[in-house]
Amino acid sequence: MAASSASPPDPPAPERARRAGYRRLPVQQRRDQLIAVALELFGSRPPEEVTLDDVAEAAGASRPLVYRYFSGGKQQLYEAALRSAAEELTGRFTVPGPGTPTEQLAGVLDRYFSFVAEHAAGYGALLRGGSVVETARTSAIIDEVRRVALRRTLRHLGVRDAGPQLTLLVRSWLSVVEASALSWLDEGRQIPQDALRDWLVDEFVVMAAAAAVRDEQTAGMLATVLALESPDGQAAALIARLGELLVLRT
Amino acid sequence: MAASSASPPDPPAPERARRAGYRRLPVQQRRDQLIAVALELFGSRPPEEVTLDDVAEAAGASRPLVYRYFSGGKQQLYEAALRSAAEELTGRFTVPGPGTPTEQLAGVLDRYFSFVAEHAAGYGALLRGGSVVETARTSAIIDEVRRVALRRTLRHLGVRDAGPQLTLLVRSWLSVVEASALSWLDEGRQIPQDALRDWLVDEFVVMAAAAAVRDEQTAGMLATVLALESPDGQAAALIARLGELLVLRT
Repeated sequence: MAASSASPPDPPAPERARRAGYRRLPVQQRRDQLIAVALELFGSRPPEEVTLDDVAEAAGASRPLVYRYFSGGKQQLYEAALRSAAEELTGRFTVPGPGTPTEQLAGVLDRYFSFVAEHAAGYGALLRGGSVVETARTSAIIDEVRRVALRRTLRHLGVRDAGPQLTLLVRSWLSVVEASALSWLDEGRQIPQDALRDWLVDEFVVMAAAAAVRDEQTAGMLATVLALESPDGQAAALIARLGELLVLRT
Repeated sequence: MAASSASPPDPPAPERARRAGYRRLPVQQRRDQLIAVALELFGSRPPEEVTLDDVAEAAGASRPLVYRYFSGGKQQLYEAALRSAAEELTGRFTVPGPGTPTEQLAGVLDRYFSFVAEHAAGYGALLRGGSVVETARTSAIIDEVRRVALRRTLRHLGVRDAGPQLTLLVRSWLSVVEASALSWLDEGRQIPQDALRDWLVDEFVVMAAAAAVRDEQTAGMLATVLALESPDGQAAALIARLGELLVLRT
């Protein structure tokens, strides 16, 4: 489905001369530009309302030129745009070097929410679905993002062969990250990004604890993580506050 | 888009006589039957692979008959099936009468997971999306289910005018319920339904606690809920176990 790497360059000079205002770009640069423009448009309007003419116009290109790069038309361009967003997003899941586990998680979330903030439209397009240009193939792109996120989070936690409860925990927490990001965008980013990140780190700790209640593997993972936390770090502050909040008044 | 309430009945006797094996059903019953059959088919295969002929055959009806009820064809039938699943699902969000808040939440989750178990295919179809029959209109059906769930959960918690953090908390927890249900189905229901329900109740308590750390409204809601809990109930047992699990080893 991907456009051949031997995509045609922009039309030759005589043809171009007839269409004043179109700039000639190198092949890869033009392809990248069309994808970037498409992602912006598909993300900011319902994808079924975006036409190839819209993309051409926003890119300062002609419709035939867009077709030369994406002979499959709008559907192919949509998928290429989605794949590009997915690749950039999964690239941000890589775990940084130093720090306690909660500091590392905060670092990953910082990069994730920077992507969400920079590409609000594209992120929405990636995760919201529900348009006539969605197919089993676009679903597969999104599922792959989720699989990579699950795999990297488990690796980050030092887990091999996660059982059903631990898998469920991580998938659930990732769904909280997704839902939070969409909710954050929907509601005009009322919550500061740092507060959202810290909340999600805390949510990971408490969600793991509630899963650890009924699963040995999760309890082991949690103990390992907490053993690496600093006594003046975020996990310690959370645990101290939970003691005050989780009190039955009976 | 909904079929008119004056949908035509099955064809008259002479026409029927030519097609042996087709049973005549009253209008509403036939319509309900076509929707039920469609939901089953759309849920068990990628919706783009299901044809109207498949639906007709599974319903013991003819293709023209299906068209008489759903003149918009497959897309209209798909939307009607989705709407039917959505209505049944939201009906289960109603909060039962007696019990502590965690017992009531467990009751709602019991009914929710019974729906998921009984209509595994339909539930997947409702929430997974990603097919050529998804449109802004099918997305709207799913969004409405989520809005009803959010509204009823907040009402159950006695909250009016939820602020951004409390809204984020409930939306996040609902996304955990959804992700858990899909994960549960994907992985062949390895975790018993009761254990999944109890885990989600516990997750609600701890997620609320982590949100209460940074939000007064959530802290107030949590205190109100915990004040109604029994000293030998699920929340008390959870809190006791968390004290053992959430310990820094430094």
